[in-house]
Amino acid sequence: MGPLNDRSEFGFTGTFSQQNGGGFLTDHFPTAAKSIWDIDGYTVSSRHIPDVRYEGKIHPGLAGCAPSQELLETWNEREQELIDKHEADPESIPNHPTGEAEPGVANPPTTEGAQMGEMDPEAAEEAAKEAARTVPPREHGGNHDIKDLSIDSTVYFPVYVEGANFALGDFHASQGDGEITFCGAIEMAGYADVEFGLIKDGMDKHGVDHPIFEPGHRGPNFEDYVTFCGYSVTEEGEQRYIDSHTAYRRACLQAIDYLKKFGYTGQQALHILGTVPAEGRQSGVVDVPNACSTLAVPKGVFEFDISPGNLESRADRGNVVVTDDPLE
Amino acid sequence: MGPLNDRSEFGFTGTFSQQNGGGFLTDHFPTAAKSIWDIDGYTVSSRHIPDVRYEGKIHPGLAGCAPSQELLETWNEREQELIDKHEADPESIPNHPTGEAEPGVANPPTTEGAQMGEMDPEAAEEAAKEAARTVPPREHGGNHDIKDLSIDSTVYFPVYVEGANFALGDFHASQGDGEITFCGAIEMAGYADVEFGLIKDGMDKHGVDHPIFEPGHRGPNFEDYVTFCGYSVTEEGEQRYIDSHTAYRRACLQAIDYLKKFGYTGQQALHILGTVPAEGRQSGVVDVPNACSTLAVPKGVFEFDISPGNLESRADRGNVVVTDDPLE
Amino acid sequence: MGPLNDRSEFGFTGTFSQQNGGGFLTDHFPTAAKSIWDIDGYTVSSRHIPDVRYEGKIHPGLAGCAPSQELLETWNEREQELIDKHEADPESIPNHPTGEAEPGVANPPTTEGAQMGEMDPEAAEEAAKEAARTVPPREHGGNHDIKDLSIDSTVYFPVYVEGANFALGDFHASQGDGEITFCGAIEMAGYADVEFGLIKDGMDKHGVDHPIFEPGHRGPNFEDYVTFCGYSVTEEGEQRYIDSHTAYRRACLQAIDYLKKFGYTGQQALHILGTVPAEGRQSGVVDVPNACSTLAVPKGVFEFDISPGNLESRADRGNVVVTDDPLE
Amino acid sequence: MGPLNDRSEFGFTGTFSQQNGGGFLTDHFPTAAKSIWDIDGYTVSSRHIPDVRYEGKIHPGLAGCAPSQELLETWNEREQELIDKHEADPESIPNHPTGEAEPGVANPPTTEGAQMGEMDPEAAEEAAKEAARTVPPREHGGNHDIKDLSIDSTVYFPVYVEGANFALGDFHASQGDGEITFCGAIEMAGYADVEFGLIKDGMDKHGVDHPIFEPGHRGPNFEDYVTFCGYSVTEEGEQRYIDSHTAYRRACLQAIDYLKKFGYTGQQALHILGTVPAEGRQSGVVDVPNACSTLAVPKGVFEFDISPGNLESRADRGNVVVTDDPLE
Repeated sequence: MGPLNDRSEFGFTGTFSQQNGGGFLTDHFPTAAKSIWDIDGYTVSSRHIPDVRYEGKIHPGLAGCAPSQELLETWNEREQELIDKHEADPESIPNHPTGEAEPGVANPPTTEGAQMGEMDPEAAEEAAKEAARTVPPREHGGNHDIKDLSIDSTVYFPVYVEGANFALGDFHASQGDGEITFCGAIEMAGYADVEFGLIKDGMDKHGVDHPIFEPGHRGPNFEDYVTFCGYSVTEEGEQRYIDSHTAYRRACLQAIDYLKKFGYTGQQALHILGTVPAEGRQSGVVDVPNACSTLAVPKGVFEFDISPGNLESRADRGNVVVTDDPLE
Repeated sequence: MGPLNDRSEFGFTGTFSQQNGGGFLTDHFPTAAKSIWDIDGYTVSSRHIPDVRYEGKIHPGLAGCAPSQELLETWNEREQELIDKHEADPESIPNHPTGEAEPGVANPPTTEGAQMGEMDPEAAEEAAKEAARTVPPREHGGNHDIKDLSIDSTVYFPVYVEGANFALGDFHASQGDGEITFCGAIEMAGYADVEFGLIKDGMDKHGVDHPIFEPGHRGPNFEDYVTFCGYSVTEEGEQRYIDSHTAYRRACLQAIDYLKKFGYTGQQALHILGTVPAEGRQSGVVDVPNACSTLAVPKGVFEFDISPGNLESRADRGNVVVTDDPLE
Repeated sequence: MGPLNDRSEFGFTGTFSQQNGGGFLTDHFPTAAKSIWDIDGYTVSSRHIPDVRYEGKIHPGLAGCAPSQELLETWNEREQELIDKHEADPESIPNHPTGEAEPGVANPPTTEGAQMGEMDPEAAEEAAKEAARTVPPREHGGNHDIKDLSIDSTVYFPVYVEGANFALGDFHASQGDGEITFCGAIEMAGYADVEFGLIKDGMDKHGVDHPIFEPGHRGPNFEDYVTFCGYSVTEEGEQRYIDSHTAYRRACLQAIDYLKKFGYTGQQALHILGTVPAEGRQSGVVDVPNACSTLAVPKGVFEFDISPGNLESRADRGNVVVTDDPLE
Repeated sequence: MGPLNDRSEFGFTGTFSQQNGGGFLTDHFPTAAKSIWDIDGYTVSSRHIPDVRYEGKIHPGLAGCAPSQELLETWNEREQELIDKHEADPESIPNHPTGEAEPGVANPPTTEGAQMGEMDPEAAEEAAKEAARTVPPREHGGNHDIKDLSIDSTVYFPVYVEGANFALGDFHASQGDGEITFCGAIEMAGYADVEFGLIKDGMDKHGVDHPIFEPGHRGPNFEDYVTFCGYSVTEEGEQRYIDSHTAYRRACLQAIDYLKKFGYTGQQALHILGTVPAEGRQSGVVDVPNACSTLAVPKGVFEFDISPGNLESRADRGNVVVTDDPLE
């Protein structure tokens, strides 16, 4: 697993504008932004985010086998129901910016811009009308964005069709749990060597119907973290019922505000959290009404000490590239 | 940090019945159950869950400083609003068993059974009417149930009142992320040596208003995991909008079904996930409409190999203590 | 495992003078010196070695079962032969300061100062004449000084006599591989909870006649190291034949000279290497004529960055207590 | 760092015969032997050593800058002195098979078979007469065989001549500390991406004259080990004075005897110890007369449980390829 070739030793991280897909913190960062990363072996650094340099957790964001026709229909149905529900009553969808059309709550099939490979054009047009978009992960795997699917991992994917039709892509030089920037991790052109085996009736035998995996042992490993907590109370002080989404958002916002004290802008901090191998944990999910999520940021990715109490390390650290054009 | 004394070298894990507080998987495990654990140094094992034996991740579930009167009122207000909302429209509360009164969505102050220490009885009665229940974590910390607050951690708590009034308790010999059994971890009588320092205006200076911490380096560390994935589609096939709570529940259910294939009962598997240092991660939170949560179960806690493909290790492994009495 | 009681939360490290036992680097540090350490939980720091503070690798330096009479006689014979050989021809003993009487090459039994417990005085006198001194480790374990025998380790000791007569002591709050200061690690008063089991004919069954062990998982774990190399060429430039002793000494001397550039004295550096969980490895033992030993010093034990290139961190850091009295 | 190309996804491990270079355990394994390894990503396995499969610790055994003429002469002089001393009095060389001519105690320059690159033939002949053989590591680095110089490491080599003349090679897919098989590790054809920087007067500034390095963070990491001890008493019962070479040999022999109980032959066990990322430590170097060296063998490299007490895992496991021809 590595950069595709000698001309691919770079990557980028983007924040989408709210009108262009948004993201986990789009209410706080509605504007598009970008950082460019240099990839040096597995080590990454960015001209836009000084004093951050680390060995990345490389992985393909996307991997899995093709769904059966039946499974595809299940996906399309259940996602359309969500879209319909949202249209009928926007307030009924928790954690979506209420009343906003953008970003959509799901992305139905579309013929527009569909990548159908070498299919006959007519057949492709038909297929695109019902083919699943690759945005979300689903029972087959797909756009998992699980940072731990790194080098030397073994993944067990369900097989739905003759031949499996395995695909893999969306390479990330590194990512933090959640890929909170959306676009996201350090996006790169990459390759992977993959070895295949087949377990007959494997899913049935093991009692599962989603992918399971055994992560590799290739690090990077960190020894020191600063960890941030969030609970399921919104930024406006509204109490939510054990809502881990809100809890994780609050933990991420705490981390961003913390990093700003060392001289990073909010967008830089967002790009740091989206790309360094930060651990986002479901720390507590039973102590009603508050879920507790934590975000552990490895100290070792910084070239200065971000421990509490070291605020003298504060410095002007520039910014990522921010644009006002909502469709960039 | 360790057992309180020589007579405290044991602990227990309980599943609450739905009528008695429930828990993360109460719809699937509505009946009360219990397992007893022996604590041997930091190593734990249970007569009710054979072939599981590991060095636990010991920590206090609860720690923090007393809130100010103002903060306390904020808590009571926002939690009461949630209770009121639930009463007015049960369906408006995501992830609560709709239409069910139990478990409550939050626990308002009560004089019944309040532990008020050495307060004058009359004053205690008054105080109990508004004193925060210790169930959830809040801005001051409290019942965090963060497994990573283990030996040699440094925690930065906000101080709200003169003298801080720090308290700590709810010892766990070990716990998995989420404490999904609710009661939960391996509950034990314990002690901790704590050292205090004070940073003036520390929260302001660091841009945070929740606790932050630097975890210790005392393990246990594991090398091999089986990891399970869940997405925000309910057991009934309903598509939720990036709902990490649902995603984590699905990942946990996958793990339970997997462990059953090796001969554990569902309740045993639940108690395993609630107590071993499993990592519950917010792996993806932006790929609409599916959140992706993962649960990484360390192989090293088992005395046999739970890797995929080793189903010949299946054996009858008994059960935890299960009761039909809903109030046990 | 921990300090013996509330009054035991301290330890010390000593360099012996050459006339009083010497040590690994006695030619370079012939004078006695001492540092005092505070023990805070498992975290240690010393008033004599500023800017060093870390979670120690606590362990008993000494553990094992009593030898049989036959084994004891074997020990006494073979060690006396070495003493005799040294007396007859000092130059025949590699790695001993040639021509020096002190330190001795081995320590034969002596009645002087022998600690014989509750034995009858006359029997004690007789026993002391042949009882093994506890300085070296031998087939039974003994004064192993293996830092990795820390919390939650399982050790398999040979049993030679009815009842085993297990003993354990020489507590170290932390130590680097080799205990190169000799006295050595952070010496402390401690306790350990030990659990016993018996494997009949265990040594025979497993093909070993020395102790074997499974180390615990309790860290501390470090992520970053500066590693130093040494080869089997003496300080005077003499080529030795794959001599790992010389190679390790050279690696340690490199590390000491390196640490001096940051402002530590040589004795401070020696005490750092003797106490922090440094990894001393037999990296190469076949590339004639040079053995290659390495010493990996964990960066995390320092409160400043000791990475190459950060010499601006140099500061006056005082010194340990050094004495001129050769018998102190 | 990885295999050179698609046709290089294999490696080999060899034991040299005593007449052909020998090795660390040549007295115990005087016969040549070989095992072939398949390299799959970073994961290795051998048809000759069943039930062993692991992620290797890939590294170049050899790296460094060219010596100055002056340094080269120092090497040649000091190594010749050792050769002369051996010839004059074989018994004066500890740890060499006394009285044996083979293997030599060092390898002086030779024109026979010298690889002189594109040099003019006549100049090459002259150069070969004094050029250092690449067998041992020396002050410039060279054939270090340090397993920890793996992916993402930073090494600081001394520069002796204009242009440095850096070279790197001898790729190992994996190796245990000491490379005790001599030939040794899993030898492979590989490539490495290397980035260069220059620190002016770096060695002087940092107080060192050998290479130093910061190891990478790319694992593999292991959680469980069986560790073996050795002391400086020879197989024949002769007491040596803190002789770490003997101590490590004894620890390795203990491990080999242990592995034989699980059904491996001695040669297989030797090849296991030479190739898996085993940790060989200088555990004690001051407790006269015994050095204590330990060898920690990671359990995770085996596909069955090699913990003490699991001897029921014993099976016939074949053998490596052994030859009687002493010059193979």
